Amino acid sequence: MNGQTLRIRRVGIDTYRENVAYLHRDCPVVRAAGFQALSKVTVHANGTVINAVLNVVDDERIVPTCDLGLSEDAFARMNVPEGHAAEVAHAEPPASISSLHRKIGGERLARDEWIALIADVAQARYSKIELAAFVVATHQNELDRDEVLYLTEAMIAAGRRLDWGSQVRGGAVVDKHCIGGIPGNRTSMLVVPIVTAHGMLCPKTSSRAITSPAGTADTMEVLARVDLPFDRLAAIVRETSGCLAWGGGAELSPADDILISVERPLALDSPGQMVASILSKKIAAGSTHLVLDIPMGPSAKVRSMGQAQRLKKLFEYVATRLGLQLDAVITDGRQPIGRGIGPVLEARDVMMVLNNHPDAPHDLRQKALLLAGRMIEFDPDVRGGDGWRIARDILESGRALAQMNAIIDAQGRVTDPPSLGTLTHEVCSPQAAAVQAIDNLRLSRIARLAGAPLVPGAGVDLLAKVGDAVAAGQPLYRIHARFPADLGFATALAARDAGYALAAPVPGVGELPFGAA
Amino acid sequence: MNGQTLRIRRVGIDTYRENVAYLHRDCPVVRAAGFQALSKVTVHANGTVINAVLNVVDDERIVPTCDLGLSEDAFARMNVPEGHAAEVAHAEPPASISSLHRKIGGERLARDEWIALIADVAQARYSKIELAAFVVATHQNELDRDEVLYLTEAMIAAGRRLDWGSQVRGGAVVDKHCIGGIPGNRTSMLVVPIVTAHGMLCPKTSSRAITSPAGTADTMEVLARVDLPFDRLAAIVRETSGCLAWGGGAELSPADDILISVERPLALDSPGQMVASILSKKIAAGSTHLVLDIPMGPSAKVRSMGQAQRLKKLFEYVATRLGLQLDAVITDGRQPIGRGIGPVLEARDVMMVLNNHPDAPHDLRQKALLLAGRMIEFDPDVRGGDGWRIARDILESGRALAQMNAIIDAQGRVTDPPSLGTLTHEVCSPQAAAVQAIDNLRLSRIARLAGAPLVPGAGVDLLAKVGDAVAAGQPLYRIHARFPADLGFATALAARDAGYALAAPVPGVGELPFGAA
Repeated sequence: MNGQTLRIRRVGIDTYRENVAYLHRDCPVVRAAGFQALSKVTVHANGTVINAVLNVVDDERIVPTCDLGLSEDAFARMNVPEGHAAEVAHAEPPASISSLHRKIGGERLARDEWIALIADVAQARYSKIELAAFVVATHQNELDRDEVLYLTEAMIAAGRRLDWGSQVRGGAVVDKHCIGGIPGNRTSMLVVPIVTAHGMLCPKTSSRAITSPAGTADTMEVLARVDLPFDRLAAIVRETSGCLAWGGGAELSPADDILISVERPLALDSPGQMVASILSKKIAAGSTHLVLDIPMGPSAKVRSMGQAQRLKKLFEYVATRLGLQLDAVITDGRQPIGRGIGPVLEARDVMMVLNNHPDAPHDLRQKALLLAGRMIEFDPDVRGGDGWRIARDILESGRALAQMNAIIDAQGRVTDPPSLGTLTHEVCSPQAAAVQAIDNLRLSRIARLAGAPLVPGAGVDLLAKVGDAVAAGQPLYRIHARFPADLGFATALAARDAGYALAAPVPGVGELPFGAA
Repeated sequence: MNGQTLRIRRVGIDTYRENVAYLHRDCPVVRAAGFQALSKVTVHANGTVINAVLNVVDDERIVPTCDLGLSEDAFARMNVPEGHAAEVAHAEPPASISSLHRKIGGERLARDEWIALIADVAQARYSKIELAAFVVATHQNELDRDEVLYLTEAMIAAGRRLDWGSQVRGGAVVDKHCIGGIPGNRTSMLVVPIVTAHGMLCPKTSSRAITSPAGTADTMEVLARVDLPFDRLAAIVRETSGCLAWGGGAELSPADDILISVERPLALDSPGQMVASILSKKIAAGSTHLVLDIPMGPSAKVRSMGQAQRLKKLFEYVATRLGLQLDAVITDGRQPIGRGIGPVLEARDVMMVLNNHPDAPHDLRQKALLLAGRMIEFDPDVRGGDGWRIARDILESGRALAQMNAIIDAQGRVTDPPSLGTLTHEVCSPQAAAVQAIDNLRLSRIARLAGAPLVPGAGVDLLAKVGDAVAAGQPLYRIHARFPADLGFATALAARDAGYALAAPVPGVGELPFGAA
């Protein structure tokens, strides 16, 4: 390849999903080839080729003068031992870069361009800067629905695709997904036990939190092991019909993971990217039927019925063309669901519902039954409208709890579960009032600053919800933390704005009805 | 600041202009604060605050468990010794991030928004990902001319501004600039001696090549030292009225340097960003009068007269409002200027013109006289149209050469100049033909692969130019290199496409007139 040969050395730096190559400034290759910091280089070894961004190093302890250092991710991708010879050369831009430039120029890309571009993304041939350019370009020039379809297909094609070989209920593999943005919304941990108790196959993989105080994987981890090798997962699904595991290791739609790593810091979430991201992951995971939860509210991702309907139709268009049965449900997103925000608190809420505890959060229970019912109606033997009742019967009979315990035991029950953070601070109402609205984003940030999800017992416990009347000095919520600094951060943020909109109670009316705001 | 205190350690990694903080995965702060790879953090020490992107480290040799590692750039910015205590905390997004989101959303930003946004860019509060988003957003939503004006003002305000205190010719500080894209176009090294010989103040600072085979600073470095401290530069200008130095160290328009670090890898060059970049640097450098060279041709940056005129008017609009006298000249950009491409070869061409050598490249000489003449006409005592003749007289009399030698001696003459690369390959015409066009981009890439500018003696020497007739087997150009691998790269690229468009010569016509293609 006309490159220069060096020995590979692993550099213990986690650059997330960007390949970084470290070369010493005095390395003859650096001067001879004219490499500069942020140059893009290709590394060839043993038939594997990766692109990497170059960081120039001035310290022999990080990388000796004549070695080629690779960041953790790049080293793992090369898949050769330390000391193996590798060739370094100037990187040609990925072949699909002209499509990226056309997209930046506002043009529409054809199907084969999407396939090539996303394949290059999945192979880490794009730098973070180029990925950010792609994300902004597709955000600004809203993709038409066929482009969203091509993007979704391309994302599926760029990774592995699971086949559960299901013989159950006509080969159906059911799943549910929420577009996100609502803290405490842990319906998956109720829906999976209910629908698998009904006999459906529901191999649910979930994400960990990135910007939220808990993902389903974080909350499930309070109860059971979630980080399972794929073969073990498949065995659990054969045994229990379901699972509640972390999906990060399965290499499903890897291009999506890479794009998300730049979308998150930019807080960009365009409809096209959302649809492609969710549907590519679900189809790659082998799902055939999907109930989609689209929460709508003033601090949710979707803020108006018009926006919700447009998003729903885009999901339906792409899903239909890719052979996925989709039932999209627009739900109430005006406040967090349940009481707890943070892994331990959310796991508590889930187990209260499964135990049919009289104080279990009503809204979490109702929403889980709604979604489970819609999934059950994918069963050709169930009459339209009967799903909710079947789901309720499964829950009330204790079969959902038994099923959850079976899944927990199969994945590996946590013997010493993390405890609730003992440092607390209560945020109280300054006056007698009725709760009008609760800001999802604000409460998420407070729970995160308190330490969630990395400190599982940290978070926020909501003591009053929309429609509740509160007296002056009555607590609205309690912040839990493990470390004093975290409690300080979260308390300070809550002091600036507690995230509760309060209205004077109507004279003579003790309590406003739910949703009166 | 509620942050966590750690000791600063310098990590010898050059991340170019992105601040990177390195924390060990086992550092208690990482877990307690929930830092993850690519988190943005703030570092406070001794009253200085910087934002940095976090890389998580697994190797104590890079950063010990309880230290805070900083990349070279971040360490320099903090300006405290190693071992100094620093506080690390989650970074709030820069205050101007909402303006960035408005720009991504296609909105027009007001003057104060531009000032705040560019100040945050200059203070390195934006990550590479956010900078890429900014660059693409301003590229896609073409800035209106007032936004370009505000962006230019903001860039000037974010750095230092030089004042030459000139008493010469009414305080005029003259400069010339080319928008780039044409290899070999080293007119500055002719124009500066000519106009300073006329008595004008012309403190020319230039860039090094980033994507081209040579910048003026690279070529001048063949003859003299160009990396001079600012005080020394000022003394040279007082002494000789001019200089030909590298401008990179002066902290003029630092936001521009940061934006360029993401524009280059994306190969994005929108008119608004080009105008703001060039004019902010010139005005910050204290220029009062500027001749601007806009080359136009099929492989130049500007490819049509309409595009050239629109760009010219945008430059004029912004320059006028910022009090800069601007004379924009649209020039012939259909092929490289002069014969040599690469530092040593270009320096040879320049010295041949200054020495009035009969074989000096005619086109380089003519273009330098044109531009110098326009600059001389900024002199209120010179009649319109007389500039070219005055410039020619200065050149032919040897005064320009004497002035160049004075500048070279003042900056520090190179006693042992680099020699031309001795490894050569000639690219020949496959048939008898006339040269119709020469691809600027192709020839630049061939010269770069040959080793320019890092190997000063590498490059391409053009032996036939547009309009010349060549026999079958007659060389079109000669590639010079120092290293066999470089010669191999460059030769291989030239074999794929030599960059010359050839046409059968018209029968009976020995040679086509210049420009007949």
